Amino acid sequence: MGNTFGHLYRVTTWGESHGGGVGAVVDGCPPQIALSEKDLQPDLDRRRPGQSKIVTPRKEADRCEILSGVFGGKTLGTPISVWVKNEDARPEAYREMETMFRPSHADYTYQAKYGIRNWQGGGRTSARETIGRVIGGSIAKKMFHQLAPRLSVTTFVRQVGTVVSRMDAGRVDMREVESNPVRWPDAKEAAQVVKLIERVRSEGDSLGGLVECVVRGCPVGLGEPVFDRLEADLAKAVMSLPASKGFEIGSGFAGAGMRGSEHNDEFYLEGKKVRTRTNRSGGIQGGISNGEDIVFRVAFKPVATIAKMQKTVDVKGRRAELKARGRHDPCVLPRAVPMVEAMTLLVLADHYLRDRAQTGSPRK
Amino acid sequence: MGNTFGHLYRVTTWGESHGGGVGAVVDGCPPQIALSEKDLQPDLDRRRPGQSKIVTPRKEADRCEILSGVFGGKTLGTPISVWVKNEDARPEAYREMETMFRPSHADYTYQAKYGIRNWQGGGRTSARETIGRVIGGSIAKKMFHQLAPRLSVTTFVRQVGTVVSRMDAGRVDMREVESNPVRWPDAKEAAQVVKLIERVRSEGDSLGGLVECVVRGCPVGLGEPVFDRLEADLAKAVMSLPASKGFEIGSGFAGAGMRGSEHNDEFYLEGKKVRTRTNRSGGIQGGISNGEDIVFRVAFKPVATIAKMQKTVDVKGRRAELKARGRHDPCVLPRAVPMVEAMTLLVLADHYLRDRAQTGSPRK
Amino acid sequence: MGNTFGHLYRVTTWGESHGGGVGAVVDGCPPQIALSEKDLQPDLDRRRPGQSKIVTPRKEADRCEILSGVFGGKTLGTPISVWVKNEDARPEAYREMETMFRPSHADYTYQAKYGIRNWQGGGRTSARETIGRVIGGSIAKKMFHQLAPRLSVTTFVRQVGTVVSRMDAGRVDMREVESNPVRWPDAKEAAQVVKLIERVRSEGDSLGGLVECVVRGCPVGLGEPVFDRLEADLAKAVMSLPASKGFEIGSGFAGAGMRGSEHNDEFYLEGKKVRTRTNRSGGIQGGISNGEDIVFRVAFKPVATIAKMQKTVDVKGRRAELKARGRHDPCVLPRAVPMVEAMTLLVLADHYLRDRAQTGSPRK
Amino acid sequence: MGNTFGHLYRVTTWGESHGGGVGAVVDGCPPQIALSEKDLQPDLDRRRPGQSKIVTPRKEADRCEILSGVFGGKTLGTPISVWVKNEDARPEAYREMETMFRPSHADYTYQAKYGIRNWQGGGRTSARETIGRVIGGSIAKKMFHQLAPRLSVTTFVRQVGTVVSRMDAGRVDMREVESNPVRWPDAKEAAQVVKLIERVRSEGDSLGGLVECVVRGCPVGLGEPVFDRLEADLAKAVMSLPASKGFEIGSGFAGAGMRGSEHNDEFYLEGKKVRTRTNRSGGIQGGISNGEDIVFRVAFKPVATIAKMQKTVDVKGRRAELKARGRHDPCVLPRAVPMVEAMTLLVLADHYLRDRAQTGSPRK
Repeated sequence: MGNTFGHLYRVTTWGESHGGGVGAVVDGCPPQIALSEKDLQPDLDRRRPGQSKIVTPRKEADRCEILSGVFGGKTLGTPISVWVKNEDARPEAYREMETMFRPSHADYTYQAKYGIRNWQGGGRTSARETIGRVIGGSIAKKMFHQLAPRLSVTTFVRQVGTVVSRMDAGRVDMREVESNPVRWPDAKEAAQVVKLIERVRSEGDSLGGLVECVVRGCPVGLGEPVFDRLEADLAKAVMSLPASKGFEIGSGFAGAGMRGSEHNDEFYLEGKKVRTRTNRSGGIQGGISNGEDIVFRVAFKPVATIAKMQKTVDVKGRRAELKARGRHDPCVLPRAVPMVEAMTLLVLADHYLRDRAQTGSPRK
Repeated sequence: MGNTFGHLYRVTTWGESHGGGVGAVVDGCPPQIALSEKDLQPDLDRRRPGQSKIVTPRKEADRCEILSGVFGGKTLGTPISVWVKNEDARPEAYREMETMFRPSHADYTYQAKYGIRNWQGGGRTSARETIGRVIGGSIAKKMFHQLAPRLSVTTFVRQVGTVVSRMDAGRVDMREVESNPVRWPDAKEAAQVVKLIERVRSEGDSLGGLVECVVRGCPVGLGEPVFDRLEADLAKAVMSLPASKGFEIGSGFAGAGMRGSEHNDEFYLEGKKVRTRTNRSGGIQGGISNGEDIVFRVAFKPVATIAKMQKTVDVKGRRAELKARGRHDPCVLPRAVPMVEAMTLLVLADHYLRDRAQTGSPRK
Repeated sequence: MGNTFGHLYRVTTWGESHGGGVGAVVDGCPPQIALSEKDLQPDLDRRRPGQSKIVTPRKEADRCEILSGVFGGKTLGTPISVWVKNEDARPEAYREMETMFRPSHADYTYQAKYGIRNWQGGGRTSARETIGRVIGGSIAKKMFHQLAPRLSVTTFVRQVGTVVSRMDAGRVDMREVESNPVRWPDAKEAAQVVKLIERVRSEGDSLGGLVECVVRGCPVGLGEPVFDRLEADLAKAVMSLPASKGFEIGSGFAGAGMRGSEHNDEFYLEGKKVRTRTNRSGGIQGGISNGEDIVFRVAFKPVATIAKMQKTVDVKGRRAELKARGRHDPCVLPRAVPMVEAMTLLVLADHYLRDRAQTGSPRK
Repeated sequence: MGNTFGHLYRVTTWGESHGGGVGAVVDGCPPQIALSEKDLQPDLDRRRPGQSKIVTPRKEADRCEILSGVFGGKTLGTPISVWVKNEDARPEAYREMETMFRPSHADYTYQAKYGIRNWQGGGRTSARETIGRVIGGSIAKKMFHQLAPRLSVTTFVRQVGTVVSRMDAGRVDMREVESNPVRWPDAKEAAQVVKLIERVRSEGDSLGGLVECVVRGCPVGLGEPVFDRLEADLAKAVMSLPASKGFEIGSGFAGAGMRGSEHNDEFYLEGKKVRTRTNRSGGIQGGISNGEDIVFRVAFKPVATIAKMQKTVDVKGRRAELKARGRHDPCVLPRAVPMVEAMTLLVLADHYLRDRAQTGSPRK
């Protein structure tokens, strides 16, 4: 049951990295939203392998096909089924995985839990699985275009390895982010990050980093007491992405070291609008959006697949050694950007509909 | 609908800080688990106000009463309803809140979302709401006593303000933690943290910090692909607590700056058991527990209620000034420990039953 | 997990017939709905024992208390917790049930499933459990008063034993129904049904019958494809009531014997409104309400508790004989009326909010 | 959100009658269940059009393809995605439906609810949608083969028009049922029912009827208090099928006219097994299976699409006349058998896993 996300805007994803394909079924999308494959493909292209020299060269066009839920270019209100065929699968590259557990991968835990696993690639824990999430997020984006057009989600790479961008989140522009292969907020600085990634790859090693996300124009009132606070659902959403290790919102971990008098966000009036002078709350108070920018960061560990020799054990309980073959990302961050964006959109879409259900959203 | 947590082990909480009381209904608990009020009271006492000089002096005995689901000292398999009466409510202390929005509180967002709010205290966002969570977690603890007795949850304060404990998580002992009012892992160091808290309170200010949680003896195989990864559900669980601003597991944010070759956890054999030499994964791989200690940290912001004058706006859209009265915690961390513990137990209980459903747990 | 009903308008009930009490938590109710105990009590009084000479004389005032979710006479949008204390419990009257399985009761199945049961009364399968349902339905009724005031639910007893009322469903008036203890649509005929019930009781036996429900003024568009068709959710709702054995909507079982040309409901126009000349569809087409009256019937078996000697077995697997003592209804039908009404309101409230979420209900 | 069924064994279906195809995603299936397309095809063939002369001649091979969740012939424990391409779509045959509402179909309610509909065929309310249900049920059947091999589901046509089979449910044999195109329990009598169906079709008319279902070998203990009683979930399951108008279990509507002393099922011992002499309970007591045969019936209305001229209105609010063209079933009953069977299996699979979660099923 863990393959469905959301209560009202519900996305169910399916598919292994090797097999017929991967896809998503989106249930609960409002009717009459303009939608075609052309709307989804750009986001899938931002996620797909082979998009630049710093990501895995696996060749997947990731062409999606909408199988249901759309008629005459508009959503019907019924489930939207979208799938992407697997093309460049090379199961033979994974032959050793049949018998060995790769360190810091899910081979062992899947085997232990289910007594069986698809060892041809990462199976259900492959980054390929995130195609379904991107599809769901992309449809949510179309929904907001019509229903809450001021809402936008700006997602970018804040850190790769120990290199951190100092750009103010409020100034980040998606065109600049998408203009460079790292998805770095300052395109000029991106070249040196590309070099870092290439160097680490040439050493047979890998890098982690941080993705940051800024939601602008979010309606006031999204989120619910007490378990489904908006930040709780955002945390779950992004912590469900492969390789994520941490989440913080607003002041985050730094906020833990501050005094209340420093940390509190004073209210003031901008015309008739209630606003806060600072935004240590990260756009959410008491679990509910307050109209300020929602700002959060996600930590990703370095990619577990590396070309160095590593010690491990095999399925029969014997010591073994392993060195990655196959085609892998040296750094997941650039491709993580559309994934974080998608998960954010899923959470917002769900809470938008939930708020509309309970309050009728008279004020928005 | 945001007041229910869990799929199989389901806790629904209710209640405002001022009103008839607060409580929880636990549905899905296995039958024949030994349970009485005496099992729940110690955890409620760890959470309650007035337990020490460094927490709010609000006087609430927080005596719980089990109203259903238990017969002859054992659970029936039917919903367990438990409630705690509100006693020391002083709505008059909150009179200004009727008209003013407290900075970094939920007054404004609740008013904006619902067009109404219980201004006598924090309403549904009060820390008092967490009583229901503690009840649910405490019953889960009893369930594990019978069904998975090796499992234990060790939760403690890792940081207050900028003071950080250096104790190794593996060495922390709950008796030592519970022996001091801060719930600090090293009881000897606790005195200075107490002093810090008292000093900041006397200045009319407040502190934040970090709680750390270590789950030992967790069965292998808890967690599900892909949205309900164990760390995703843990993140949601603790990020739904009042004042939490961040979550990290295993290597966490520090892991983002590491190389794959440093970060990967090598497998080795301990007898027939597959283990990892390091634990940067934090006990979870691919979203599923691997049998190592589950280790995570939660950041809490400084308490928003402070005795200093703050600028704000009122419900009629006018500028205003506000200075907290009433009785408040200068630092939520000591009382956050049983809350984090409870949320962790809720997640583990739910996934324990989910795993039993799908796999029949033959190996555990 | 089976103790919660609804997706958006969610009711969780708890409580055994003997124990602290019974109650409900309603989550998801819109804010600013006028609500007090006075609104709930009349429906609870229609359900309670001792209300007339033809129902069980168990003495329960069934006074409810709202513990949360209401402030200043209006709902807050947070969970509404309501409970009713158990008063006239006489566990000693059930002493034989500790060891014996009553025929056509749930004693055996609960014991077999859970290995434990509250044998003091019917436990969780007692009619007393329906108090929580009535509370949830009664709050839904208040919600509709404000949000869809044309909607009304007319529920009555269509049949007791083999005596069937011939009154046309469209003509039934709730005042007449509530004016007689049977809740018979024709108050004049009710006296003879009372006599029948009294006679059967004096014989130590019991009766079944049919309840019919007519929803008038239901907005067009409630219900969802494909599993959550409105009639499917209504069927589940009423088939979850104790003693129900069948459900039919519109033409129902009689429709199975008709030809399509007889059965189809022709459309016509009444002003600008699309209507049907006949209503064999029962107000629902393709799972979605069409604006005509929703009409369905529920079959209830005769009460299982009878004063005649019956053969059975005991918990130790020995043959036994049993004759009911205690205070029981000879016919559940009069008290089933508010239960069916409540379940209907729960389904409608949930689908009303679901429709508002997905479609924004622009036309209604 | 209405397109997902089940809590633990979850089936999400998608697809319109005209469009890319139809399919299902099954989440929560236990791992290591043997499964291939060959297991699913026989049930799909029992459902598909063109299988005999008394059903619609629409030519659909309904070949299914498993896209995920299976590896080396066994389930992985991850979502199983299965789809069937639409082949013999003739949207032109439905051109009039673009503008007209067919009586007793869902054209009007879908248009009113969503403001848009796929008028090329029945869209989401087409019988074609049930392919996804049959897939889900067929996988559940395989699960039971391995986990509860004594369980079997016998489903057959009890009534067509006013012709009723008198065969005792306990004596019905699936081979005999499947040996005749009506799926009539007595193959010899089937020929006359075939004649009836052919005659009614030649008159441009249609028939309804009853399907009966008998579950043998169901483990004791499936079902949950109070809303998710086993019969409630069965009722919802089959009442969500297109054209169903009623559900009854055990004694059903006839039970409403009986006395308690006639209706009660006495317990007796068969060896150490607790059994009932009669089975008016229909195999379920207090919402929980008692080990006796589960027996229920479902009423289906006559097919709404008929070749006679009917009055209706069009989308612009004008009077209109309509006569069905296209290829339709004169009687849905033969094809309803695998649909009812599938829905029954979905309910049982879900409750089997739920019971295993909560009780650990030690006794079964």
